[in-house]
Amino acid sequence: MPSADVTRRPGPASNGRIIGTRVPRVEGRAKVTGATRYAADQPVPGVLAARIVPSLYAHARIGSIDASAALALPGVRAVLTAADLPIVGRGVERRYEPLVVEEAVFAGQPVALVVADTDAIAEDAAALVRVDARPVPPVVDALAAIDDGAPLARLRPRPTESEAPASNLHTRERTVEGDAEAALATSEIVVEGAFSAPWVHQAYMEPQAGTAWLEPDGTLVVSSGTQATFHVRNELAAIYGLPSSMVRVIPATLGGGFGGKEMLIEPLLAGAALRLRRPVRLTLTRSEDFAGANPSQGLRIDVRIGARRSGRFEALTARLTYDAGAYPEESWEWFAPALMSGPYRWPALDIEAIGVVTNRFGTGNYRAPTGPPGIFALEASIDLLAERAGLDPIEVRRMNLVHEGDEDTSGDAWPRIGAPECLDRLADHPLWTRRGELPRGEGVGLALGVWPGTKVPASALCRVEADGRLRVVTGVVDISGTSTTMAAVAAEAFGVPIDQVAIVTADTSTAPYSPWTAASAITYGLGPAVHAAALEARDRVLRFAADEFEIDAGDLEIVDGWVRPIGAPERGRILAEVVSAFDDFASPHPPLEGHASTAHTVKAPSASGHLAHVRVDRETGVIALLDYVVIQDVGRALNPALVEGQMHGGAVQSIGRALWEALVHDDQGQLVTGSFLDYAVPRAPMLPAIETIILEVPAPEGPHGAKGIGESSALGAPAAIANAIAAAVDVRLHELPMTSRRVWTALRAADPPADPDRGR
Amino acid sequence: MPSADVTRRPGPASNGRIIGTRVPRVEGRAKVTGATRYAADQPVPGVLAARIVPSLYAHARIGSIDASAALALPGVRAVLTAADLPIVGRGVERRYEPLVVEEAVFAGQPVALVVADTDAIAEDAAALVRVDARPVPPVVDALAAIDDGAPLARLRPRPTESEAPASNLHTRERTVEGDAEAALATSEIVVEGAFSAPWVHQAYMEPQAGTAWLEPDGTLVVSSGTQATFHVRNELAAIYGLPSSMVRVIPATLGGGFGGKEMLIEPLLAGAALRLRRPVRLTLTRSEDFAGANPSQGLRIDVRIGARRSGRFEALTARLTYDAGAYPEESWEWFAPALMSGPYRWPALDIEAIGVVTNRFGTGNYRAPTGPPGIFALEASIDLLAERAGLDPIEVRRMNLVHEGDEDTSGDAWPRIGAPECLDRLADHPLWTRRGELPRGEGVGLALGVWPGTKVPASALCRVEADGRLRVVTGVVDISGTSTTMAAVAAEAFGVPIDQVAIVTADTSTAPYSPWTAASAITYGLGPAVHAAALEARDRVLRFAADEFEIDAGDLEIVDGWVRPIGAPERGRILAEVVSAFDDFASPHPPLEGHASTAHTVKAPSASGHLAHVRVDRETGVIALLDYVVIQDVGRALNPALVEGQMHGGAVQSIGRALWEALVHDDQGQLVTGSFLDYAVPRAPMLPAIETIILEVPAPEGPHGAKGIGESSALGAPAAIANAIAAAVDVRLHELPMTSRRVWTALRAADPPADPDRGR
Repeated sequence: MPSADVTRRPGPASNGRIIGTRVPRVEGRAKVTGATRYAADQPVPGVLAARIVPSLYAHARIGSIDASAALALPGVRAVLTAADLPIVGRGVERRYEPLVVEEAVFAGQPVALVVADTDAIAEDAAALVRVDARPVPPVVDALAAIDDGAPLARLRPRPTESEAPASNLHTRERTVEGDAEAALATSEIVVEGAFSAPWVHQAYMEPQAGTAWLEPDGTLVVSSGTQATFHVRNELAAIYGLPSSMVRVIPATLGGGFGGKEMLIEPLLAGAALRLRRPVRLTLTRSEDFAGANPSQGLRIDVRIGARRSGRFEALTARLTYDAGAYPEESWEWFAPALMSGPYRWPALDIEAIGVVTNRFGTGNYRAPTGPPGIFALEASIDLLAERAGLDPIEVRRMNLVHEGDEDTSGDAWPRIGAPECLDRLADHPLWTRRGELPRGEGVGLALGVWPGTKVPASALCRVEADGRLRVVTGVVDISGTSTTMAAVAAEAFGVPIDQVAIVTADTSTAPYSPWTAASAITYGLGPAVHAAALEARDRVLRFAADEFEIDAGDLEIVDGWVRPIGAPERGRILAEVVSAFDDFASPHPPLEGHASTAHTVKAPSASGHLAHVRVDRETGVIALLDYVVIQDVGRALNPALVEGQMHGGAVQSIGRALWEALVHDDQGQLVTGSFLDYAVPRAPMLPAIETIILEVPAPEGPHGAKGIGESSALGAPAAIANAIAAAVDVRLHELPMTSRRVWTALRAADPPADPDRGR
Repeated sequence: MPSADVTRRPGPASNGRIIGTRVPRVEGRAKVTGATRYAADQPVPGVLAARIVPSLYAHARIGSIDASAALALPGVRAVLTAADLPIVGRGVERRYEPLVVEEAVFAGQPVALVVADTDAIAEDAAALVRVDARPVPPVVDALAAIDDGAPLARLRPRPTESEAPASNLHTRERTVEGDAEAALATSEIVVEGAFSAPWVHQAYMEPQAGTAWLEPDGTLVVSSGTQATFHVRNELAAIYGLPSSMVRVIPATLGGGFGGKEMLIEPLLAGAALRLRRPVRLTLTRSEDFAGANPSQGLRIDVRIGARRSGRFEALTARLTYDAGAYPEESWEWFAPALMSGPYRWPALDIEAIGVVTNRFGTGNYRAPTGPPGIFALEASIDLLAERAGLDPIEVRRMNLVHEGDEDTSGDAWPRIGAPECLDRLADHPLWTRRGELPRGEGVGLALGVWPGTKVPASALCRVEADGRLRVVTGVVDISGTSTTMAAVAAEAFGVPIDQVAIVTADTSTAPYSPWTAASAITYGLGPAVHAAALEARDRVLRFAADEFEIDAGDLEIVDGWVRPIGAPERGRILAEVVSAFDDFASPHPPLEGHASTAHTVKAPSASGHLAHVRVDRETGVIALLDYVVIQDVGRALNPALVEGQMHGGAVQSIGRALWEALVHDDQGQLVTGSFLDYAVPRAPMLPAIETIILEVPAPEGPHGAKGIGESSALGAPAAIANAIAAAVDVRLHELPMTSRRVWTALRAADPPADPDRGR
């Protein structure tokens, strides 16, 4: 349901009938019929099965590893430890330690790798490997870990360190504008809160899996479920000291990634293949994946906001304590200023980000990394502020929004963003306008979020086939239907029905340079390259056809797969017939092919508004989520079906983080939520129907105005639901997930029972 | 040893140090160490082994095929016959008849295909298949086959024919300019001759091999040793009625092709995979390949030349009878006018080409197809003419050469060709100037040849890797080191050492559009695309580096892998370091990548001169080839080592055809030279050292002036050796190969022994 009041950027193509239409995902049929081969399904002759031997302790010194019993098992080929991997790169990073180097730093960390003829043998053998592990105290609580005298999460110096770490502090960064303390002191209203969010898992359905082998010429090949093929290729080259041309990464169809499949098991697989010179496959079990992968970090946010009674913001202070985990290289401290300032003007701000090493997991990314807890802290605080001031929470947000051209925290200018339009739609929504009519115990809350997106360079190749079809070659891994969207972009530009376009994901050996499928990058980043490449292919066809038609190329067009003189469609000829005349042995025309390399000058942030309608049972704390609305500025909905799918998915993951999901460790650092029985991802019966409202505020550099949309919809549920709970039962929650127990506890704290013994 | 007197076209690159230097073949190491995987070595999980059941007769009606005994053998999966292949295309062409349809038309033609778990089982089972074959008279002699009342090589109408053929005549084409008969009648000198050449095999070391399978999404994949991946892809799509996007052809490294591996077993493999839905591999045995592949056709040429006493040509008549074989689609009648007129001006000519269907093989291509017999007839006749006129044979050729701008037989203008330079070098060569000093029984002969080459459109992609290396992606199959040459072209344009360039052959699913590796197409056709793509990549790097250096991109250059300000090399930075700063998440620069699509307006014919020095034993007819010189205008020797390798190879294959090679059938159409024991390809001890002399007459549109060079060197040995024999012992041979027996017979005919009983 596109908004009618935004300017549509006219597409340069001749049809205009594909962009904006609902097209099913091109790869959907193969997926639902079971024809898709995921990473663990790739046929590789002679492949050996690998299983990890995990660390049983969250923190331990590892002495000898006795593999003799394992090696005695028939069918076991090798038991590899860190020293067996021919790693040349160095650094305190997980990529350089695919197996434990002397010190295990989280429970589930791979200590050794068993390689055998079959999975069953490898599994049996893994249980026979004796690891001499001497446990030392683990660091589980990031807040306590920076106290003086706290135990260290890492005892030993790493290759690039001259001495052992003196503390668990990983980073401490502070961004200051103006005098926030002074401004707070003079603010008419000040609110504050301490918010926290746990580690959460990306909960991809397909566990981490991959296969590595060497080609006869020595090329290292890794086929895995990765979102970031070129990144993995470059990393493996660096880790193992290979020229990048001797590393080839073949991306398999992804069974979910959400940021968690950028690179994890690939260095281990590569090392095993390089060592053994045999193909090696590793598929993590669900429990191994829960315990040993790279989920999204826990975060504590202490925030204060000062404002005038009018609602105008005066100051923001925030201290964010990031649990940076055992391998903190993907920890997001750097993003704290942008995250906490949000789409608002702050006359003064003081944002401190602290990263703390703990004995949890290695840190990974997850859809809008750190966004949901950040927006939770910010938007719940603003809601409280509006309540305190007796103001409309939408108006408070509106009056403080950044304007186009304002400087953001990184010094770039804000482009036009769709936040005002999102607020308009929130304000108009019946759920909001009629919230006063709700029964007692129900409430509606809202939140606003903006995800900055990114601006990745990209290339694409479009080849016209002998039968008139268009083939688009990129190295981009399809997530959430990006290939379907790119097919629409190409079809629109070239002038054929979408089913005449094939999108092909090449591996790193032959693909045009391609960005990671991450960070809402693909539609915005790759789209212009596909568009331009398709236009060049079209231009080549028209110049060739000009000779055939004996007419100027500029007087021809391609519409719906027909080449025709403009204004004389009856003289059209079907494209397949025209291009079949192309003589590859004598043509004076170059091949009917286009290629483009593009880059952006600006990002295209996507704003989203979120509305949650809850009913809270005061007796039990049980929350019923009755309605959820996500409103998102997508620039242009190239394929509304897929846009809505993204909005649904983002909302659901956000709701899961709001209400249920947490990776919980005990005080010894043992994961106690290591399966889908314990880790509560949302399932359909747990959710209301989710309403999606698409807004279109075009991005000047996006394909047909489109923006990257993957992350913004995942921002808002924790804040919107917290605000709805406050509206329903007048308690404010600060800790995710907002379980029944926590709601109940908060209700009791706010309103102790008349009989103090009751309910204890 | 480039000629000093030709103009060098300056390369547009900054180095100028790579082009023209000797670089070993990049793939050589893998080949000589056994690491290369050829078509039969590709690992394909679950692949089944196939063996053909050949026709035992050259011509037979095929009734029932009883596979019961074969199918009873454990491990046999299927015995396929023509009806089992889901062919939708129709036509009297081999591609539509990968298995016999009712009528076998040559001995060795596949009648059925046995598919089994192993090669051994398939072989055993193939012997158990009972074919009800009723032999009918075969047609073996193309000359006799067009007589009235001759038996027919094909009895049954084919799908596109309304009735059975009435004769064996396949084509008859005549090209007439002026009144050749009248001109001959008034010519002061007329020579004539009837020349013939047998079928010859391309004698690739690797037999025809390939594998086909279906991907889970239904894509048909064929991995084979083919020179023409896109051609095979398009053909398979047409044969089996598939969209081209559902057919993928993966070219394996070729173990020799020489024109014989454009497409042969691929339709059969594809049909088997489509039928069985299992991977199927077929590797022809050497005998199957000799009997059933697509060698080069036999040819009879009747030629007359009229000239003035001055040597000026007056007229040419030629009647060429092509043995077009059982599947004549690759027969070369169309080329007769260009072939026979050569690089000469003919005031009048009359060239008739007749193609005759016989029960031999299907026709295929072989390096300079029909060139060696054509040049044999033409250049031996010119030699005779010069002898008759008492003129220098070089001067006779020189005075009759075409000039730049003359019209060729197809109506195009001749570009400048290097024929005068070749004649100069022939005239100056000591072997020629001192031929009068030779002992009795020795002689030197020469020949001139020009191969027109072709002008194929091509595309190429060049990607700069994160470590500064350049990756060039094409779909071109490497033959004779073309990838090494392209690496030089790319390295020169980009500005890095050649070992920093990787050339990658992609398959049809992802490759930029690529021509066949055939017809001397690659250097001339692909070179400009690689050159332009590398320049674009260089330009991208310089524009990126300009920001880093804070200098204008136009003031930067890349030399030897360093980016440096022009004129200030000491400020240079190594390329790898410069490009490593490219931020793929935020760069305002497009990816460091180039792509180009190019086409030619003119061909670049390559002229060659050939000198043979022989000693003939009058008693036995044994010919000793003492010296062989090949002089070739290559435009520009991009890599002289490879150019000389091509000249060596062409000369050797030409010598083989001159002296030894023939595919001989008996009168029942049974091949009697079906192995390398019987089929006499040259081996090193049979050959003299071959001298190569490179001339460089630049092609205006070639990369650095280079021309396609694969074929011209293969043109001249039959003519040069025949002319040398004439010089040595004054007999002229007209039939290839010029075996000792034929020489002896000719000597006896010219000079019968005094005692008529002696030597009989």
